[in-house]
Amino acid sequence: MIVAMQESATEEQIQRVIEHLVGMGFSVHRSTGARQTVVAAVGARVDFDIRNLEVLSGVQEVHRISAPYKLAGKTFRPQGTVIEFPNGVKIGGEEVIVMAGPCSVESREQLFTVAEQVAKAGARALRGGAFKPRSSPYSFQGLGLDALKLLREAGSRYGLLVISEVMEISQIAPMMEFVDILQVGARNMQNFNLLRELGKVKKPVLLKRGIAATLEELLLSAEYIMAGGNYEVMLCERGIRTFETYTRNTLDISAIPIIHKLSHLPIASDPSHGTGRRDKVAPMARASLAAGADALLIEVHHDPDKALSDGAQSLYPQQFSDLMDQLRMIAPAVGRKIA
Amino acid sequence: MIVAMQESATEEQIQRVIEHLVGMGFSVHRSTGARQTVVAAVGARVDFDIRNLEVLSGVQEVHRISAPYKLAGKTFRPQGTVIEFPNGVKIGGEEVIVMAGPCSVESREQLFTVAEQVAKAGARALRGGAFKPRSSPYSFQGLGLDALKLLREAGSRYGLLVISEVMEISQIAPMMEFVDILQVGARNMQNFNLLRELGKVKKPVLLKRGIAATLEELLLSAEYIMAGGNYEVMLCERGIRTFETYTRNTLDISAIPIIHKLSHLPIASDPSHGTGRRDKVAPMARASLAAGADALLIEVHHDPDKALSDGAQSLYPQQFSDLMDQLRMIAPAVGRKIA
Amino acid sequence: MIVAMQESATEEQIQRVIEHLVGMGFSVHRSTGARQTVVAAVGARVDFDIRNLEVLSGVQEVHRISAPYKLAGKTFRPQGTVIEFPNGVKIGGEEVIVMAGPCSVESREQLFTVAEQVAKAGARALRGGAFKPRSSPYSFQGLGLDALKLLREAGSRYGLLVISEVMEISQIAPMMEFVDILQVGARNMQNFNLLRELGKVKKPVLLKRGIAATLEELLLSAEYIMAGGNYEVMLCERGIRTFETYTRNTLDISAIPIIHKLSHLPIASDPSHGTGRRDKVAPMARASLAAGADALLIEVHHDPDKALSDGAQSLYPQQFSDLMDQLRMIAPAVGRKIA
Amino acid sequence: MIVAMQESATEEQIQRVIEHLVGMGFSVHRSTGARQTVVAAVGARVDFDIRNLEVLSGVQEVHRISAPYKLAGKTFRPQGTVIEFPNGVKIGGEEVIVMAGPCSVESREQLFTVAEQVAKAGARALRGGAFKPRSSPYSFQGLGLDALKLLREAGSRYGLLVISEVMEISQIAPMMEFVDILQVGARNMQNFNLLRELGKVKKPVLLKRGIAATLEELLLSAEYIMAGGNYEVMLCERGIRTFETYTRNTLDISAIPIIHKLSHLPIASDPSHGTGRRDKVAPMARASLAAGADALLIEVHHDPDKALSDGAQSLYPQQFSDLMDQLRMIAPAVGRKIA
Repeated sequence: MIVAMQESATEEQIQRVIEHLVGMGFSVHRSTGARQTVVAAVGARVDFDIRNLEVLSGVQEVHRISAPYKLAGKTFRPQGTVIEFPNGVKIGGEEVIVMAGPCSVESREQLFTVAEQVAKAGARALRGGAFKPRSSPYSFQGLGLDALKLLREAGSRYGLLVISEVMEISQIAPMMEFVDILQVGARNMQNFNLLRELGKVKKPVLLKRGIAATLEELLLSAEYIMAGGNYEVMLCERGIRTFETYTRNTLDISAIPIIHKLSHLPIASDPSHGTGRRDKVAPMARASLAAGADALLIEVHHDPDKALSDGAQSLYPQQFSDLMDQLRMIAPAVGRKIA
Repeated sequence: MIVAMQESATEEQIQRVIEHLVGMGFSVHRSTGARQTVVAAVGARVDFDIRNLEVLSGVQEVHRISAPYKLAGKTFRPQGTVIEFPNGVKIGGEEVIVMAGPCSVESREQLFTVAEQVAKAGARALRGGAFKPRSSPYSFQGLGLDALKLLREAGSRYGLLVISEVMEISQIAPMMEFVDILQVGARNMQNFNLLRELGKVKKPVLLKRGIAATLEELLLSAEYIMAGGNYEVMLCERGIRTFETYTRNTLDISAIPIIHKLSHLPIASDPSHGTGRRDKVAPMARASLAAGADALLIEVHHDPDKALSDGAQSLYPQQFSDLMDQLRMIAPAVGRKIA
Repeated sequence: MIVAMQESATEEQIQRVIEHLVGMGFSVHRSTGARQTVVAAVGARVDFDIRNLEVLSGVQEVHRISAPYKLAGKTFRPQGTVIEFPNGVKIGGEEVIVMAGPCSVESREQLFTVAEQVAKAGARALRGGAFKPRSSPYSFQGLGLDALKLLREAGSRYGLLVISEVMEISQIAPMMEFVDILQVGARNMQNFNLLRELGKVKKPVLLKRGIAATLEELLLSAEYIMAGGNYEVMLCERGIRTFETYTRNTLDISAIPIIHKLSHLPIASDPSHGTGRRDKVAPMARASLAAGADALLIEVHHDPDKALSDGAQSLYPQQFSDLMDQLRMIAPAVGRKIA
Repeated sequence: MIVAMQESATEEQIQRVIEHLVGMGFSVHRSTGARQTVVAAVGARVDFDIRNLEVLSGVQEVHRISAPYKLAGKTFRPQGTVIEFPNGVKIGGEEVIVMAGPCSVESREQLFTVAEQVAKAGARALRGGAFKPRSSPYSFQGLGLDALKLLREAGSRYGLLVISEVMEISQIAPMMEFVDILQVGARNMQNFNLLRELGKVKKPVLLKRGIAATLEELLLSAEYIMAGGNYEVMLCERGIRTFETYTRNTLDISAIPIIHKLSHLPIASDPSHGTGRRDKVAPMARASLAAGADALLIEVHHDPDKALSDGAQSLYPQQFSDLMDQLRMIAPAVGRKIA
């Protein structure tokens, strides 16, 4: 922590800042310049609210020096995290993993149709929502446990990993049996009670960035899970809210190289939710891969006009297959490959 | 719903749009102009994803005409909602209600000290957090049930209503006995499972705007609660995330007159969370009142330097008392009064 | 400047950073901690691009300690700047100054009608656009020099100062004769060539915040003018662009107390452009005053339905007069008065 | 234009809206539903401020149906615009054009060194700033006319087109002789006087998106130039301002496919300004190409540590050459090629 005092700060004010820091357990170095005094504080505490210093009299500015996360930071594991599944698939390795499937699991027929098609095109994981609390109280709310069973069955039949979203602590236990990856949605990125419980399970977690979350906050949420002992966390960019209204959100592709610089965790991209419109999914999937994404989440539906949720952003199976061909051409340019 | 077709749209494309709308149960009116065709659809469905039309061939733009909420809309109750409590206090009436207290309940001594002071200065409700899941996994997490009991006791002693935040469905039942208002925090504004449960209780709810939520989304979340039968909802502006980084959030004061135009629900303002810095709380509290707020939430701590959370944004009791005096001077300018 | 090195930084990398700083003329203090090294650099240069340090190998973070502006900063003139006009009116003093008038000067009759009414209601300055380059190439573009002459004449007749917007360097000279305050619009806040020229004139400047400008950038633009020798600068909040689309912009009321903390310059608020809708102007004008604004800019038109520009945000004269009465009631709560 | 009346609107209010529209020259169709009346207005006016209707009594919402631009819209030239230069290079065709060079022209030696290297690596145009008004009043301001002469000379020697930024109307005439493309910077995107003059010249214009500009506003600015008769306009995404502060701006890659859908104009991407940091330039350049960009602007400097401006975002020549190799691998995946 660096505390820059105002030029007009009195000796008394400087002493009060130093006492405050010492009281918090920091080691303090004072540097008295011609114009202003700067106090540097070093210590192990990361849970410090720097505003408590900012409001002290005579303080001009306070800067946190070390990032507020440790386990999620690059230095913790400079070589990068690779998450390996029992079937040999790895996320964070040379292969870029594509996870595809419908927004919601609607029926056995729907799910198996889509699963077969995405598996054939090269997807490695099957995505599908089981619980769908919607922004309107009158919309389709998901098939629940039945959806999870169907996902597992379809995954097994077509050799796909299964990923689905967990929305409440009470859903973790029933999901453990059916899914390979627990997904945390953007709205739950800061549901710290849920994150804490996910730190206790032995199952990889895909953590989506909130629509108004900074990358530091995303990493801090990953830290929450990791602090509980679960280090198999992957992050996912899915669009942030900006002033531009043409698309639902602005997919922040630059998050991909930034996360790679700040953290050892794999980073995925979700161009379906990130754009909200089918015709933008393929360009943004290609862009994500070209920027270095370790995985892609793509919504596919065999009859999107009749989809019970998010049909507008679901690709037709043929579009998905064409996209996979394009991705295969791009991957070598970034030293990667696609199944 | 208004669907504007592209100038180049074919008759077949227009027919497909009309069939789609009819299939959804809408009444359709077609208006064929010299340059383009416009299709107007009228009906009772509010849970319609307009993107499903936007992606149809030949469609240029789609506009929703009616707001996606009904119960929360102005026309539902044009005279405005007034929430009345057993002790006679009303929110949404002539009096502007000030709710004050510490961020977290830390101890009996702390809470009673603050409660006495804010009551004396004119507050009508005591606020205080019982459950505090924090963004850092290493921070103070709240006193839980003990905090609720202390709040009730202090509220009774000093004649204050009690408001505290509910973060999970499982907390609703234990809280019912102790609080007068259930607060939903910004991070839970779109926790639809929680909102649905709150629709079933007989207890006023204060719903805070998410930091990236539009006012339409805020009203839609209120709709969620009201759809369950609980009409005693009040809204609360507490700052949105913008590019400006000097304050934590940008308190959107204009939300106050806008909500008054769009909805019959009372609207509160929380300048403490909205600014995150003590020295900005008083100006923004005054501004909120001058813009027409029905209630104010203000953090007060008798020793903010030692507060376990958010001390930097807590007023000293004397500052709070001074602020109340200023608010009393401003209220008549907007036809209101302060206790 | 504080440069925090990565924990893994080598001695060579640290030396390179130090050499870089010394080469730029900074005095350097090195502080070697148990885990990481921090380098503090002190010096008079304010035009330094800190990214040049951020990209050096081994650097973790760089923080600027001193603000990049000097003349606009609070310490330059702690007592605050008061701009005094020949007729005795002062901006930045006890009286809050209201500047009112039409968006564009459209005709003699229009301007004089409005001027008389706003003067009667208590305005101290007459505002009106002479040059109106519009976002559509087909709209009304302003009366130019004729507008300036009419403004001067109306100002003189009704005892009002005259403020109008300057959009290009070539307009400065002709405007000097007719206006009392040169207004720089939001789009020109970073037109540095224009700012430099305004630093050379002897005429107060009102500088509007750009819709995507941070407060630091606003102060840096003020610095540009002041660096040329013109210290009579006042700032103006007029709304920033956010994700909320209900209003044109989000008027950032918190800018008012923040500017008062960071700078000695007076700060005005423009609720007309800040909201873009007539029915939001009065609440936001009251809120601005309650938050401490030194001046208010308000658009008034005697027949807004027929206004050639921005009629939707112009108050009717009676609305303006009612607003002035409300402002008079609020002013004493913040230790101010209104004419 | 669609005007949806409130359910409670009176017949008189509806008539007033209709009269208002007729008075503006629109053809009006009234559609009276069971619950509300909708008025559709069709006409050639594009310069209409819809807020003038929104503030009328009884009006609920107003939607503009046709885009406020015509010449820049897709329907004007569905096959797309290809800008062809005398040397045979085309922008908007199969080849993706890379424009590279230093931020500012600093000296003959610097410019020729960089020009030779970027030409060798496959760039087709040489970029370089001649006029550099900086945000700090104390920084390097550019070489002016001398820079333009050097650009022309270097361009000719190495077979590169020349692009440089025009900042004021007075610079257009002297630049005509030296540059092949006139660049309009983000800060001038809504400098309508400048845009109008650029509509009169016979020289392609590259128009950069403002940091807070919507894509509709960008297209409207292009319309401004085209309305004057100059149809050789290309657009450029260069980053928008969001709440994320890790990078200077958020490069909005999705702007590329969106512009391709809305407009016939070519769209370029500037990952150097869009990220502000050297290590993010290559990933974002690749992503832009993969998303369909027609051109790329990339800053390259042979000694970026000593660059007088924006050294932190300039690539070393070897990095640029490596990037070009990656781009050549990606281009076929999107049906394009790179020199």
